[in-house]
This record gives sequence, C-alpha cells and structure tokens, in this order.
Amino acid sequence: MSVSEFSLIKEFLTDTSDCGLTPALGIGDDCAVLDIPGDQQLAVSTDTLVDGVHFLAHSDPYYLGHKVLAVNLSDLAAMGAKPAWATLSITLPKVDASWLRSFSQGFFELAKSHSLRLIGGDTTRGPLSITLTVMGLLPKNKRLSRSAAQLGDSIYLSGSVGSAGVGLQKAKAGASDITDYDLACYLKPTPRVALGQLLLDQATSCIDISDGLSADLNHILRASGVGAVIEQQWLPLTESVRQQMVLLNDPLWACSTGDDYELCFTLPASVAPPTRDDLQGLAISKIGVIEKNLGLRVKLPNGDIMPLDKGYDHFNE
Amino acid sequence: MSVSEFSLIKEFLTDTSDCGLTPALGIGDDCAVLDIPGDQQLAVSTDTLVDGVHFLAHSDPYYLGHKVLAVNLSDLAAMGAKPAWATLSITLPKVDASWLRSFSQGFFELAKSHSLRLIGGDTTRGPLSITLTVMGLLPKNKRLSRSAAQLGDSIYLSGSVGSAGVGLQKAKAGASDITDYDLACYLKPTPRVALGQLLLDQATSCIDISDGLSADLNHILRASGVGAVIEQQWLPLTESVRQQMVLLNDPLWACSTGDDYELCFTLPASVAPPTRDDLQGLAISKIGVIEKNLGLRVKLPNGDIMPLDKGYDHFNE
Repeated sequence: MSVSEFSLIKEFLTDTSDCGLTPALGIGDDCAVLDIPGDQQLAVSTDTLVDGVHFLAHSDPYYLGHKVLAVNLSDLAAMGAKPAWATLSITLPKVDASWLRSFSQGFFELAKSHSLRLIGGDTTRGPLSITLTVMGLLPKNKRLSRSAAQLGDSIYLSGSVGSAGVGLQKAKAGASDITDYDLACYLKPTPRVALGQLLLDQATSCIDISDGLSADLNHILRASGVGAVIEQQWLPLTESVRQQMVLLNDPLWACSTGDDYELCFTLPASVAPPTRDDLQGLAISKIGVIEKNLGLRVKLPNGDIMPLDKGYDHFNE
Repeated sequence: MSVSEFSLIKEFLTDTSDCGLTPALGIGDDCAVLDIPGDQQLAVSTDTLVDGVHFLAHSDPYYLGHKVLAVNLSDLAAMGAKPAWATLSITLPKVDASWLRSFSQGFFELAKSHSLRLIGGDTTRGPLSITLTVMGLLPKNKRLSRSAAQLGDSIYLSGSVGSAGVGLQKAKAGASDITDYDLACYLKPTPRVALGQLLLDQATSCIDISDGLSADLNHILRASGVGAVIEQQWLPLTESVRQQMVLLNDPLWACSTGDDYELCFTLPASVAPPTRDDLQGLAISKIGVIEKNLGLRVKLPNGDIMPLDKGYDHFNE
C-alpha cells in the first residue's frame, strides 16, 4: 500500500482530543488560525531534535514523541506560560506506520496532560529529524525573564541535576544498574510547567537547564549583569549522579551534562520558594546566591572557589 | 576558531531590522512573546525543506534562504493573512559561516519586503534541513478557506503554471536554454501575499499550488463538496512549458509538476478578479468552472474530457 503524505498526517498526527483551546481553524488548511484573548500575550518557542545528535539512533519513537514536546514545554515553563498550541514537522527516511503510531502516542499523552492542541505541521522524507514549535499564553506584560536577577537573590533549582546525563551514559553502555529515575530523566523528562506559572509573580529570573546548569545559569548572569556563587554541597544530586562524579573524579560533572529539564530561578532573599505541597511533591533546592562580581563560581566542600563556565554545545562536543 | 551555537545564531540569524510588528520579547530568551491585537487572529504555518528532497544538494544558500520563507509566505497568502513573525530552525552538518551569511541574506531580503520579523529559532548539527514556522495576522473571523467553492464559480490562477518544473528539470540537466523566468520560478519564487489579502472579501476558496495544480485544486473540490472542469487551453503557460509538454507528449504535465507558488481561487461568476493594475503587473487567468459532478476534469483542445488527480507526493515520486 502506498501511504501518501496527506493520509499519514491525517491518520496519526491529527489531534482528535477536545482538550484545551480550540483553534478557530485547525489542521488541514494552509494555515491554522488562532484566537488570542485580548488580555494575553503569545509565547513562542521552537526546538529541533536530530537523530544521532539529540537522541540515539533507533530510539523508541514513543519516548521521542514525548521528549520533543517536553523539551519545548520546558521553554514555555521557563517563561511562566500556559501551553496552548503546537505545530510539528517530522522528517522520516521512509513511511513507517508503526513508528508514527508510537511517536504520536508519546506525543499526545504529554500534550493532553497539558491541554495542548496540535494545530498544524509538515511531514517530509529525509534523515530523521523533528521540529516542534509550541505556543503558550501569558497574562499581558507578565513573564519570567533571564534579565532581572538582583544582588542578594537566592538561586534555586527544581528536581535534581545530572540525572539525564547518567541516564544517557548508562543507556549507551547498556548498563544493568541504571535506575528508573535516571532513565526517565533522560528518556521521558517532565517539563516544569506548573512551577513556571507559580513563579510568575515571584521570580526575578528563570531559565530551564537543558544546556546544563553552568551554561544556563551563566545566561541569567550575563543577561542580568550580575555574578553568582553556587555551593557544590547544595546541588540536588541523586546517589547515582554522586557515584558517576566519583568515578569520573569530577565534582562539577553534573553542572555541565545538559538535557535536564529543570528550572533554575532566582528569588529575593525575603521570598520563600513554592513548597513540595504546591508542586505535587517536586523538591526545590537553594543552590547559591547572586553576587556583584560578574561570572559564575562554585564553592567546593573544601572551601576552594572555582570558575564554572562549561555547558553543552551541539557543535563542540 | 570554534564558533558556538549561540554566537552563530546571534551573528547571522538575529533580525536587526525594525520593520513590521516588534515582538514584546524577541530572540535570546526561552520563548519569544507576541502581542496579538484584539481584533485580529493569528494564522500559523510550518514547512520543512530537506537537502536532496526539496532542493538539490549543494544548492546556493542565498536561494534556499529565500525559498524556505517564500514557501511559508505562500501558505499565509493562501489564507489572506498579513505576514508578521517567523521562527527558523536550521540543521547543518557543520558550522559554515559563509553558508549562513548567504542563507540569511536571501532570507532577510524577502522578510523585509514583507515586514516579517524573525523572533526565534534553533540551530543544530545534522543533515541539512530547514524548518520555518510563519505567523500572520487576519481580521477576526475573516479568512480564505478551501471549503466554500460554489457551483458556477469561476476558477482562477495567478501567474503561470509549470515554470518551476521546467526550471528544476533544466537546472538539473545543466541546460543552457533555461529562461530567467523559469529559473526564478524554481529558485526564487514570489509568494502572492498581496493577492491573498485582496481576495479576502471576494474569493469563495483559495489555495496555493505548491503540490501541483491538480492535487491542490482537488483539495478545494473535496473540502467544498463540488467538482470542476478546467480547460487545458486556458492554462497560463510560458513558451518553455509548452515546449516541455510537446517534448514529453503530455498535455497535462504542467498540472502535476508542483513547486509553483501561485494562488488558485474561486470567485462567484458575477465577481471580477483583481486587475493587473491592482497586482503590480501580476496576471490572473480564468482556467475553469466549478460543477456539481464531484472530481476534477480537464477539457483538451480536441474536446475530450479526462480526469485529473495527480499531484506531487514527497513519499511517492
């Protein structure tokens, strides 16, 4: 059977749910058409995942479908935006109904849990690659930014850091001692969408740490014109991440691994972060303080202070 | 020199113009943030171009930059939307400053001529592929659609059809007799943005013919629940397209070649199409009539009537 581009899109990539904000016009025309309520602004983010770069070749398409959306929802979370719509462009080497079925299952499970609607897309032939554009809504003139961290602010991190890195390393090596948590952080990360919206009235800055804590916190520092010291002992690390750091003899390994979709944010010293109860069990850890001296430094358990400026860069691995 | 992903984006893909609608927040944060005026709707379209599929390997990046935007602007044109913003995701095998410089020149020349702003994007490593999402504005509850063509409507086509196909064939073969017009239709097509907006109050249906006149007019017919007959003799064809049809002994070749970015639209018989004066010299040709009998048919010069249902399909060439 010859499956055409059109029937492919129709069969697997049509959003049949009625959750979330119905577009004025959805998939099937040249454009989707959206109503934006007058008291809202639209937040837009685009990310591409490429086979062999952002995920291992022959990855399970169910997890890919989840991850490409999670990565983009994480960008909305970092702005405090509420997810609304997405367009999805998939490039596939060949028509593969079973691949598309699994991919769309992973994608739509996460989409529904955030009331996000797929409103358009494109399916083309070529090396496997997926580009997603997500759109979310923000109360007018209210958003989290990178640029207003203030001297004396406390620096917080949700969840833990380095676990996606451990998950990737162990999955690649086929290690049998991989934990469910590390594997989930790598394969099926949870974007911190609710946290972002809770921080809208509180945080002076916010970013997701997809490029690594060091690289992304440095983005906040540069945009805000400040510096920071984080305490290595305060980093929220799982036991397996600690073991990996001992193995590699690198106490800062977790700061540069990347692919974690936690939020790093700053609050004035007088403001308490959301509690575990506010966040359905998600932990928030204080990891450092904003300082006047530019640049990011880390204080080691022995009291030494080291500069920290490494991150993940797709072109310079 | 090691050029990082971030500096690449910053150097070549930052929109430094101040034309068009300024985003509330542009490139450089997790999301762009947009104000949508309360009396407008947002039209959104996504298209991907893949190396070797949508363009020849080693294509001139200047024309690629133009074309990826033209393809997407053509979708906005088909809705009658006014271009506003775009996000651009580029996957490149390696960092290549000269490639990016040419690409961005082609892209921004066309963007500026339509007051379109680039508000975000992603740059990744992998096989060459470009995904663009464009956003345009529409007066609330006013748009061109595919689904309201009426019995007795006249069918019109802007410009000519088949020229991009001839341009591609001759460019591939290195033919010396390629005309500037055919080459431009293939390499540097002009999206019919002004025409689309002019048609907002008049046309009962509209589509761009990027997948071929036959495939795209069939989309209108199915969505509208009608049929049509077009007259082969009424098709706007250049001399080189006519020669190609004689060479291939296929009088319907131009109806299925694809990659033309003209608009096909229907008007009630009582309504005159925009004139050349309205359209800065662009010709509009009547090519047929909407009928009750479902399906698309073409009437040949000898009076024979044939069904017409072929189009371009990336997965079934």
